[in-house]
Amino acid sequence: MIPQEIMKSLSVSTPSKIVLLVLDGVGGLSMGDGTALEVARTPYLDNLAAEGTLRLTDPISPGITPGSGPAHVSLFGYDPIRYQIGRGILEATGINMKLGPDDVAGRGNFASMDENDLITDRRAGRISTDENRRLVKILKKEIREIDGVEVIIQSVKEHRFVVVFRGKLLDGRMADTDPQATGVKSLDPVSLDPAAEDTAAIVKKFIERANQALKDERPANTMLLRGFSQLPHLPPMEELFHLNPAAIATYPMYRGLAGLVGMEILETGETILSEFQTLKENWSRFDFFFVHIKKTDSYGEDGNFKKKVEIIEEVDRMIPGLIELEPDVIAVTGDHSTPCLLKGHSWHPNPLLLWSKYVRRDGLKHFTETDCARGGLGRHPAMDVMPLLLANALKLEKFGA
Amino acid sequence: MIPQEIMKSLSVSTPSKIVLLVLDGVGGLSMGDGTALEVARTPYLDNLAAEGTLRLTDPISPGITPGSGPAHVSLFGYDPIRYQIGRGILEATGINMKLGPDDVAGRGNFASMDENDLITDRRAGRISTDENRRLVKILKKEIREIDGVEVIIQSVKEHRFVVVFRGKLLDGRMADTDPQATGVKSLDPVSLDPAAEDTAAIVKKFIERANQALKDERPANTMLLRGFSQLPHLPPMEELFHLNPAAIATYPMYRGLAGLVGMEILETGETILSEFQTLKENWSRFDFFFVHIKKTDSYGEDGNFKKKVEIIEEVDRMIPGLIELEPDVIAVTGDHSTPCLLKGHSWHPNPLLLWSKYVRRDGLKHFTETDCARGGLGRHPAMDVMPLLLANALKLEKFGA
Repeated sequence: MIPQEIMKSLSVSTPSKIVLLVLDGVGGLSMGDGTALEVARTPYLDNLAAEGTLRLTDPISPGITPGSGPAHVSLFGYDPIRYQIGRGILEATGINMKLGPDDVAGRGNFASMDENDLITDRRAGRISTDENRRLVKILKKEIREIDGVEVIIQSVKEHRFVVVFRGKLLDGRMADTDPQATGVKSLDPVSLDPAAEDTAAIVKKFIERANQALKDERPANTMLLRGFSQLPHLPPMEELFHLNPAAIATYPMYRGLAGLVGMEILETGETILSEFQTLKENWSRFDFFFVHIKKTDSYGEDGNFKKKVEIIEEVDRMIPGLIELEPDVIAVTGDHSTPCLLKGHSWHPNPLLLWSKYVRRDGLKHFTETDCARGGLGRHPAMDVMPLLLANALKLEKFGA
Repeated sequence: MIPQEIMKSLSVSTPSKIVLLVLDGVGGLSMGDGTALEVARTPYLDNLAAEGTLRLTDPISPGITPGSGPAHVSLFGYDPIRYQIGRGILEATGINMKLGPDDVAGRGNFASMDENDLITDRRAGRISTDENRRLVKILKKEIREIDGVEVIIQSVKEHRFVVVFRGKLLDGRMADTDPQATGVKSLDPVSLDPAAEDTAAIVKKFIERANQALKDERPANTMLLRGFSQLPHLPPMEELFHLNPAAIATYPMYRGLAGLVGMEILETGETILSEFQTLKENWSRFDFFFVHIKKTDSYGEDGNFKKKVEIIEEVDRMIPGLIELEPDVIAVTGDHSTPCLLKGHSWHPNPLLLWSKYVRRDGLKHFTETDCARGGLGRHPAMDVMPLLLANALKLEKFGA
């Protein structure tokens, strides 16, 4: 990976346009007849493959299964080890909360404890989302601020919620209060750095007041907090790559992730068709588009191979419309693999299709894991995809003379 | 490579079992009809290859020929640049000496010098091992301690021996005394760090006393010392990967290397068959087995192509017994290549066969260098093999959310 300072100095703004089309979790494993990409009929993607080049990329490094956060950070061209996004921030981002640089976000579970304050259920029997909303309403009413720090609570679903502490000089370096076991008390939000001591004291007061407010509730009479964190300071794509980038994604988490690197988040509908319509409508306004397709991952997580295949075929039918826009560079890839066989994210590398006037063709004709593995252009970290996109869009100057 | 702190936080203990079968120096070059792996008939390894995935790994980085130390450190999942094992330590380990954290070990050559103290033969005419033992006996009798530091001397073979200095606050950062030339005096063990000054003074006294003890001997009337070093502090595999690992190896050096990363060293016989019997007998007790086959390397060093082929075929016949144990993950690889053509270690990447329920198959059917090069799963540092083994054994949690 080229250092950021060098990327900044090499990248230039040009009229050429790049589309990064991410089929979340598209890579997979064979269920007998091949992977979803191999089983899907994708004539248009195969055309792109024949005209382009194929390869595999590692989201983090071989063997490492990434969450959506680091997988996207890497695809966006940032070091996923250097820029780690805390769970609290990611959860808040996932429900569309707007966060400031000093905010500390934590992920909460409603939980159950007995008369001796011992945790009996870390998820309060997975209460309904409606019950969650009712409880959050109570908490919001009872706790608006603590020692001058604003407290913002929002439901996620079932037993999960997000709490954000907003004030000056807050610090997210605190240990989880979730003991990860039952029959024991919840833990204190211990500061992991001297700078976080004041914040930890505020979080402790919050928990005491929340327990007081919930004391007559059943089964959810307490809460466990995890993943305290603050916004990572990612240099915006405009600064780093001299791009004017936009994001088209239906799920809040991916919109949030795109926001963290300074993309403009476009309003779009729920369908794949509407995402491509949004692309067309905004074509003239940006030079970089991140288009995120969620359902390849969702069906992978469900182990629903047939539906995963259908989504890939649906995306394939969008390709002619994409080509009509005359992009200079197209990349089609996943953020990580989500094999139906594993019903979850996996460590397998991402297939990558890179299409532009300037790729060195490799004679391969199918956008599949197998062809990508053969695709003599080898295998490299996903973090290097962005420099390749910029290079193919002729947006990178020469390094050295 | 993923940072150690992250590996620690991601790895979990599970009942699944991993076998890392290392055919030392197995990779090679063609002698006309193909490499040893290509010429060997290996139906069982080829079956594994067809069900698994192939690739190449670089022990260190392209072009770098590793010694056995860094090659294994890398295979065990540790950064071979960060964790360098000094020659003194490696030589001591190779003859089964038990070392403590403060010990300083050096590799010694018996040598010849003339009446003006000029070195005339850096190896004293490669004296016999018996002569070596006789001289070491003299030294042992004459020099037991220097200024409170215990001195332990052991023969290796021919002109080679090991000397270990055992005491408090010793420091191995000293220059070699071997001038790497004849017609000049031997060098002083100059300290390379102020902290090593006292140790250097002790080593200097040791050399003076040894020269005194050997003054009437011929041809070995002096010694040259190299590779002063101390045990590297490698975090044990249990801590880093949450594994309960065992090593099966016939040669002391590999047993020593396995010991450095905290593997339990199992007693075993001299034959390949007895190594696999040891594996079977201990199957229930561990979840990670490092099985080391030495002779592929030995015959490579000898340039004995035919014998190298035979050893590969002998290992192949062990594979059905291995499969009967029902391992979850098998890796078959070398630590480095040892082509008969070069009669020594080489820089060529290692062929790697990775077999588990969760590999992405690549349609290749022979465990050979050529198929591994085609094995589109690409090429990566050998250091990334461990994360892959853990991933395939479902022993790694997701990185980030």
